[in-house]
Amino acid sequence: MGNVAFEHRLVINPDQRQGDQIILTPGQKHYLYHVLRLGPGAQILLMDGQGQAWLSVLYPAWAEILGPYTPQGELPVAVTLMIAIPKGNGLEEVLRQATELGVRYVSPVVSERTIARPSPGRQERWQRLVQETAQQCERSYVPTLGAPVSWSVALTQLPAQTPAYLCTPRIAGPLLLDLLIAEVSRPELPPALIIAVGPEGGWTPAETDQAQAAGFRLASLGGRILRTVTAPLAALALVAAVLEGGGGARRPRG
Amino acid sequence: MGNVAFEHRLVINPDQRQGDQIILTPGQKHYLYHVLRLGPGAQILLMDGQGQAWLSVLYPAWAEILGPYTPQGELPVAVTLMIAIPKGNGLEEVLRQATELGVRYVSPVVSERTIARPSPGRQERWQRLVQETAQQCERSYVPTLGAPVSWSVALTQLPAQTPAYLCTPRIAGPLLLDLLIAEVSRPELPPALIIAVGPEGGWTPAETDQAQAAGFRLASLGGRILRTVTAPLAALALVAAVLEGGGGARRPRG
Repeated sequence: MGNVAFEHRLVINPDQRQGDQIILTPGQKHYLYHVLRLGPGAQILLMDGQGQAWLSVLYPAWAEILGPYTPQGELPVAVTLMIAIPKGNGLEEVLRQATELGVRYVSPVVSERTIARPSPGRQERWQRLVQETAQQCERSYVPTLGAPVSWSVALTQLPAQTPAYLCTPRIAGPLLLDLLIAEVSRPELPPALIIAVGPEGGWTPAETDQAQAAGFRLASLGGRILRTVTAPLAALALVAAVLEGGGGARRPRG
Repeated sequence: MGNVAFEHRLVINPDQRQGDQIILTPGQKHYLYHVLRLGPGAQILLMDGQGQAWLSVLYPAWAEILGPYTPQGELPVAVTLMIAIPKGNGLEEVLRQATELGVRYVSPVVSERTIARPSPGRQERWQRLVQETAQQCERSYVPTLGAPVSWSVALTQLPAQTPAYLCTPRIAGPLLLDLLIAEVSRPELPPALIIAVGPEGGWTPAETDQAQAAGFRLASLGGRILRTVTAPLAALALVAAVLEGGGGARRPRG
């Protein structure tokens, strides 16, 4: 599925822009000229990671903007994934696939049954992985990665009026697909949407109650037993398909 | 999401059954008594990998069937995944997640742009991985794994009258979700359904033409660039959700 419009992409900091010139950092020059072995005159796609992208041409120390570029892959709604940190390297797999599937914000949470206790160094590694993946799949937003917080703290930080779905194992309640289609069929798309996926042992009943009190709806991913690393991708695949107008929901704006 | 009804599950060969007794092989006894550290009297779920499962109790050299068990996770339609073999260990990741998502048959294919040239030893490793995953997620079918064949040979082996979808990158044609909902909304569910996902560089135009001539419909997974390991999971998540009655398609039979 690797039909990529640009072979080379780079995320820059908005500070680097001076008019139509993007002043390259030593690290970026090393990456472009030594790792990718590009030369002056090569065309690359520059992205600010916050929704803007430019087709650019390389000069020895800067890149010159040729024009704006509109990537086609962004969803019309900012999707947040709240995920109980999986065991081992599970979160890395989730971050990579969630970034591909269009997530805009990932909030790793520590729930009662979460076994993983990530070291602080992990956060930096995760952030790098998200940025690399966003670059590779030509996202115009680099997903924002929150610092791990407890489930109860995470619940106090939810934005108001945002549809939020707590994925439940097996069939226990309405299907996520149906809830999403109903939401997207309303006259106005919500600006954001939240999907939460529990740990290996599931949410505790108290955590589920807390979530419902905070406005979450229970949503089933169907009758199969999914690992913590697979459940968020199944959920995000449905979110993306419905937000792009599938399932009879109206086509998204813009 | 690990809400598993049985903590211990084992796939057996139908030959091992004698009346209500399942004669355990030396390898199974080692696994149950030394790896899992179970003792006689422990209850386990036995599965024949072909759709039947039994709640059983352990004796030193055999397991006694207590009664049949109906897993809830099987889809009402046998889903085949045809996948161009991804680079590196990509197929392992796909096999694990596809098994979780309910696939019944996986056919690895070698397309023109497939880089991977798997060694014969791989097939055995893949088969073991599929069986382990099916056990872990309590599938009553162990997905069948075909031997790698070329795309053109694979196309000559398609069962007749089976809805078949060739996943395409970006939005180039109708959305897979909409095609699936239309198919499942017909008066009769098809007995089987095929999803095909291409290699890192995509199908060649000739391969796409061949597939369409063989009855495949082009189906979009949306506007994002998905890796070869992510695209099949996105597709299978949609298949499972629709086959379970999501998206306004009628509830499946049985």
